[in-house]
Amino acid sequence: MRFSKTFIKTLRSAPKDETARGAQFLIRAGYAHKELAGVYDYLPLGLRVLERIKSIIREELNAIGCEEVLMSTLQNPDPWIKTDRWDIEKMDIWFRTQLAAGGELGLAPTHEEPITNLLKSYIKSYKDLPVYTYQFQTKFRNELRAKSGIMRTREFIMKDLYSFSASDEEHETFYHAVEQAYARIYTRLGIGEDTYQTFASGGVFSKYSHEFQTLTDVGEDTIYYNADRSVVLNEEVLNDEVLTELGVQRDELESAKAAEVGNIFTLKTKYSAPLDLSFTDHDGKRHPVLMGCYGIGVSRIMGVIAEKFADEKGLVWPESIAPFKVYLIGIGERGMQQAEAWYQGRADSIFFDDRDLRPGEKFADSELIGLPYRLVVSDKTLAADSCELTTRATGETKILPLAEGLHFLESMIDS
Amino acid sequence: MRFSKTFIKTLRSAPKDETARGAQFLIRAGYAHKELAGVYDYLPLGLRVLERIKSIIREELNAIGCEEVLMSTLQNPDPWIKTDRWDIEKMDIWFRTQLAAGGELGLAPTHEEPITNLLKSYIKSYKDLPVYTYQFQTKFRNELRAKSGIMRTREFIMKDLYSFSASDEEHETFYHAVEQAYARIYTRLGIGEDTYQTFASGGVFSKYSHEFQTLTDVGEDTIYYNADRSVVLNEEVLNDEVLTELGVQRDELESAKAAEVGNIFTLKTKYSAPLDLSFTDHDGKRHPVLMGCYGIGVSRIMGVIAEKFADEKGLVWPESIAPFKVYLIGIGERGMQQAEAWYQGRADSIFFDDRDLRPGEKFADSELIGLPYRLVVSDKTLAADSCELTTRATGETKILPLAEGLHFLESMIDS
Repeated sequence: MRFSKTFIKTLRSAPKDETARGAQFLIRAGYAHKELAGVYDYLPLGLRVLERIKSIIREELNAIGCEEVLMSTLQNPDPWIKTDRWDIEKMDIWFRTQLAAGGELGLAPTHEEPITNLLKSYIKSYKDLPVYTYQFQTKFRNELRAKSGIMRTREFIMKDLYSFSASDEEHETFYHAVEQAYARIYTRLGIGEDTYQTFASGGVFSKYSHEFQTLTDVGEDTIYYNADRSVVLNEEVLNDEVLTELGVQRDELESAKAAEVGNIFTLKTKYSAPLDLSFTDHDGKRHPVLMGCYGIGVSRIMGVIAEKFADEKGLVWPESIAPFKVYLIGIGERGMQQAEAWYQGRADSIFFDDRDLRPGEKFADSELIGLPYRLVVSDKTLAADSCELTTRATGETKILPLAEGLHFLESMIDS
Repeated sequence: MRFSKTFIKTLRSAPKDETARGAQFLIRAGYAHKELAGVYDYLPLGLRVLERIKSIIREELNAIGCEEVLMSTLQNPDPWIKTDRWDIEKMDIWFRTQLAAGGELGLAPTHEEPITNLLKSYIKSYKDLPVYTYQFQTKFRNELRAKSGIMRTREFIMKDLYSFSASDEEHETFYHAVEQAYARIYTRLGIGEDTYQTFASGGVFSKYSHEFQTLTDVGEDTIYYNADRSVVLNEEVLNDEVLTELGVQRDELESAKAAEVGNIFTLKTKYSAPLDLSFTDHDGKRHPVLMGCYGIGVSRIMGVIAEKFADEKGLVWPESIAPFKVYLIGIGERGMQQAEAWYQGRADSIFFDDRDLRPGEKFADSELIGLPYRLVVSDKTLAADSCELTTRATGETKILPLAEGLHFLESMIDS
């Protein structure tokens, strides 16, 4: 992409009510636009980040046999009444709306009820199980206060996966496959080393759920872990009973701020029983289907990564989800010609700052936008048959022979 | 994809309130699920069709310099109040909702107001123009009656493009580029020959808008055209003044039922003036930006194509948007082995009916699901070193030598 051809510009300031540093940078660098508290638009660079995150998640879920669907936002109350989650007293984050033709609908904050209801058309017998369906869908949650930039919003893109199994063993095998898929996803997203699977509260139907928590100073949660980090738990389950069960002592645990980047729940028959999703076993007996649900907030992940890696100069994207790999700058007439030549045919991996601006402004924008690498070619470097490669995360700069600069650009395509 | 591995099955019946034939087939063949009148879920096959339609539109819009964004559903009333479109009396298709923190929001039925408002951060001078932004976004319209299956719904996926220009000439050049891009899109979607650009009513700010109408008996509109179809117009502009202006006589026009598959509007300053989106020209003078908007209903197109091409046996997809190109059936032990061998490495273009069912059931499902080609290999065809290729649209069946069957499958990859 050419900087001169996109409508985005870097902005000097973010809205005054935007307190999260990463969110300020996302707005100033042209990734996002704030519509109102907790509601954002995604601009071309931001949409590319979201799509890269989605691609990584999609690949890993398809690899463990999941099928992608797309469910509706507008919700008929009926299945939610059956599971006792329609009442605002029971679930206070509903947005409601009225049909002109009469009747109240909800905007889906999650999709256990409609997917369970839908599968009544498809699951009759043990032969129809297991079923693993997921979607990337826009969720709505009527949070009283929206904060933390795009980490916690009222409208957000979520990957929600639901599993339907015939037996506890089948459920547990898949639950474990998701744990492993999530670990691969976080590794590919560039947060693998700082992301822990934690014990979290399980609700009525299972003792624990699991969350995935990424260490970051701006996290809203506090997690506790032992020395080798073999036991990590959320604050809400930090009690004597749980500590005894997990075989750890309170005083051997350290704490850290973290942000939730995923969760997985064993639901058993919580939704299948009231919605009557059942199957016939080998002996002709009927049983409710055993369910699990598995979430990853896609726009939230973008926010967490923005907040976690940002430094005082701007954003710092991991290579796997950066909208482009390289920020290319040409300086001087010959430098610009060389940059143009390098840009040709590589528009998908290079963000080419071809604007008629002073080098200092381009350097500052390259740091704000936060692509993994900056490659500069100028009349001066060309005189030494070289170019200058800077790694955004470390600030390290290397002088490379021109041929190696080209080789580097080639290595950035589809990597 | 293996039929045995997907959760979908073909169903014997569609919901009783689903009167559109194409929609009945979409539900029975496992492409869609009806949540309530005018609200549908998309299952794996349906989502693949939607994604293929989106890819074609995206490629053609990117090729004329458009940039993709993603805007929010939740709408702050302010910009809509300024353009006088917030009032339900003025725009009766609003869905409204209440923030828990206080205040009323709308669910976007279209995005002229927020995109115009957003671009106030980015457009200051003539140097910042033109801007062409589009999105694939879920729209909400509170229709009193939802009908015609997924052709007219309350929640739907729309491609909406907005143009921002400095002069009428610049606007008209782009408007014409969109006309040509739309023509390429409809051709690629398989409805090019039956899709006409029509004169439609223009509203306050321009005499005409244009619609793209596809001939189909289930269309909700009637279009009128002259003998060589050089003049085609919508019913709402069929009056003496327009006929005189277009140089045609009422009695030389024929009529046909058609479904709208796109529209393009010249908006001039309708939104930029009240929202104060203006630019400074070469001489330092301020002018409101000139706008256009250009829509294609993505889920609607899927519905129109389903209705238009369906026959009494089921769906008939054009090759470009079919979820898979080939429905592969193996019959008998050797036939099944040969089908398995052919399926390997071609999971993205072949839908392999590997279920343990009678051939007759597989044939019926292949017609209901409507993939462009059915390839059958059986013990009997193998004895003659051959296979059987049937074209869904024509019903034509050919016996091919085995080597040609394989060659055909190879030609179906990424075509």
